[in-house]
Amino acid sequence: MSEIQGLAAHAAGAQLLPFRYAPGEIGPYEIEVRVSHCGVCHSDLHLIDNDWGLSHYPFIPGHEIVGAVTALGSAVRDHVLGERVGISWQADSCHFCEWCRAGEEHLCPKAQPTCVGRNGGFADSVRVNSRFVIPIPDALDSLSAAPLLCGGVTVYAPLRNHGTRPSSRVGVIGIGGLGHLALQFARAFGSEVTAFSSSKDKEAEALSLGAHTFVNTRETSSIKKLARSFDLILSTVSGDQELHNFIDALRPKGTLVILGAGPSPLQVSGSSLITGERAIAGSNIGSPRDLREMLEVAARHKIKAITERFPMKDANTAVDRVKKNQVRYRAVLTN
Amino acid sequence: MSEIQGLAAHAAGAQLLPFRYAPGEIGPYEIEVRVSHCGVCHSDLHLIDNDWGLSHYPFIPGHEIVGAVTALGSAVRDHVLGERVGISWQADSCHFCEWCRAGEEHLCPKAQPTCVGRNGGFADSVRVNSRFVIPIPDALDSLSAAPLLCGGVTVYAPLRNHGTRPSSRVGVIGIGGLGHLALQFARAFGSEVTAFSSSKDKEAEALSLGAHTFVNTRETSSIKKLARSFDLILSTVSGDQELHNFIDALRPKGTLVILGAGPSPLQVSGSSLITGERAIAGSNIGSPRDLREMLEVAARHKIKAITERFPMKDANTAVDRVKKNQVRYRAVLTN
Repeated sequence: MSEIQGLAAHAAGAQLLPFRYAPGEIGPYEIEVRVSHCGVCHSDLHLIDNDWGLSHYPFIPGHEIVGAVTALGSAVRDHVLGERVGISWQADSCHFCEWCRAGEEHLCPKAQPTCVGRNGGFADSVRVNSRFVIPIPDALDSLSAAPLLCGGVTVYAPLRNHGTRPSSRVGVIGIGGLGHLALQFARAFGSEVTAFSSSKDKEAEALSLGAHTFVNTRETSSIKKLARSFDLILSTVSGDQELHNFIDALRPKGTLVILGAGPSPLQVSGSSLITGERAIAGSNIGSPRDLREMLEVAARHKIKAITERFPMKDANTAVDRVKKNQVRYRAVLTN
Repeated sequence: MSEIQGLAAHAAGAQLLPFRYAPGEIGPYEIEVRVSHCGVCHSDLHLIDNDWGLSHYPFIPGHEIVGAVTALGSAVRDHVLGERVGISWQADSCHFCEWCRAGEEHLCPKAQPTCVGRNGGFADSVRVNSRFVIPIPDALDSLSAAPLLCGGVTVYAPLRNHGTRPSSRVGVIGIGGLGHLALQFARAFGSEVTAFSSSKDKEAEALSLGAHTFVNTRETSSIKKLARSFDLILSTVSGDQELHNFIDALRPKGTLVILGAGPSPLQVSGSSLITGERAIAGSNIGSPRDLREMLEVAARHKIKAITERFPMKDANTAVDRVKKNQVRYRAVLTN
């Protein structure tokens, strides 16, 4: 095989630099995909900066990948050359643990992220295990589908797995890369949807994306008025935040799902959880099954990421703009 | 009707003093119960001391009541005079909200606690709405059944409502009034049960009550070794506690249920929740349905509170000993 060429981080916080690697002979269950589009996710920034202490340098970031299958391992039966597919945060797992056997490979203790100890999609090609290669429905265009591969499934999985239905009242905190997708998916579940944002200027867009109501989180009194209102609240905010009023905004048996965590521990009132039997839960990307389902739902409900396109060579510009929260709502690199 | 006589708190932290009140004519759905036994719960102490800021003085504490029906309102059809019944934390609710209609009266926003704005079971009699009067199965003796009415249902409801089954691995933190019942109920669900306690001298008893394993929580390394081990952990500790290692001890999709809360907010690592899709949930007594079920399960599985008996006139002594954690495991007042 020839070499794969991409843009790699070589040290925490450094600019991405051109990088080549030889992927070696293709394994029996591997698939090689020629990247056409790759979203820039906040997790890429955390990996580039080694915020989580798990980055292995040098590595090529990028895990919201759309492209075409260009090579198949000898044992692959469920994909064909030329097929348009997507790749997400996860590239492989052990295949034998209880979670892998149950179709919850994202919970496998040996889960292999696409860009940790491996190379991702800010490149011309990428290789992953076939189980983590997801067909893209024809109705989705590649540009607006790419951010669904991580951002989309991250918000879809908790909506699905916490039993959202048309009678549910769903809140979404933070209207950015994740939040603007969460509004659309929550609406697809038939729920009553409330957008919480500190940016008053996002109100019109939040409503156009599916929110029935917009609440400015700078007005604490507006949140307090919503006590006992929501079955599910998704927090897409990645920094530290005050959760108390949002927990009180849950109905009995309601759940606040944390999708991003700041550096400090969450401060949670135990008595607020006890009264009303509320919960705080984490959610972590999704399984390959969740990914397939999410893309089908996106196709059926015309759910699209709102994107800003950058040529692959301008990845550093894209990363910089994402870091400064200047992109509305998701940057996508294209080859 | 004659007056009801009991022992009331007249101010935060004060000794209980003899107190009489006239309950008035019995309402159509009310039931009067002559108290034979009444457990002393930590919640009584919190009410006496007004720790939660919701006490109305003077009031008679006591909400783990067993006794005999002595008067029935004109509309009551589901109880008979002389029947042995139990009364729990809740004495009434609105009867019309969605939670009352769904049989989850404990989540009713107008739920009336037995000892808040009303008088409880440190008395010769007590009156509550018939919906909150629970038959006591014949197989249970009144002394060891009384603490089940609040302590028992508080640990039974989360085991039931979080789907505990024979394949579950359940941990119980704190082996006291609640914890010693939680071990027995968890065992009745067929689960593998681990007791966590800072009192090494409780090991033998914890094992005899149903624990398969005892972990001394003073040995932090022993807890750390149990990472990814439990589907459900019940924390019965009412003071502030370090939760981080217990959250890490949850398996993927596991839940830590908080049954008691200290004065400070819980400190929770968001990334520990996200990795492994874990949750922290509160649980709040249980519904009348949970109470009936719990008592049936206790009867079937011979689950009993270990009690220390005090004559009703010695309620202050019992309260004092409970406050000092000197009772193993539940004080019960008897008339």
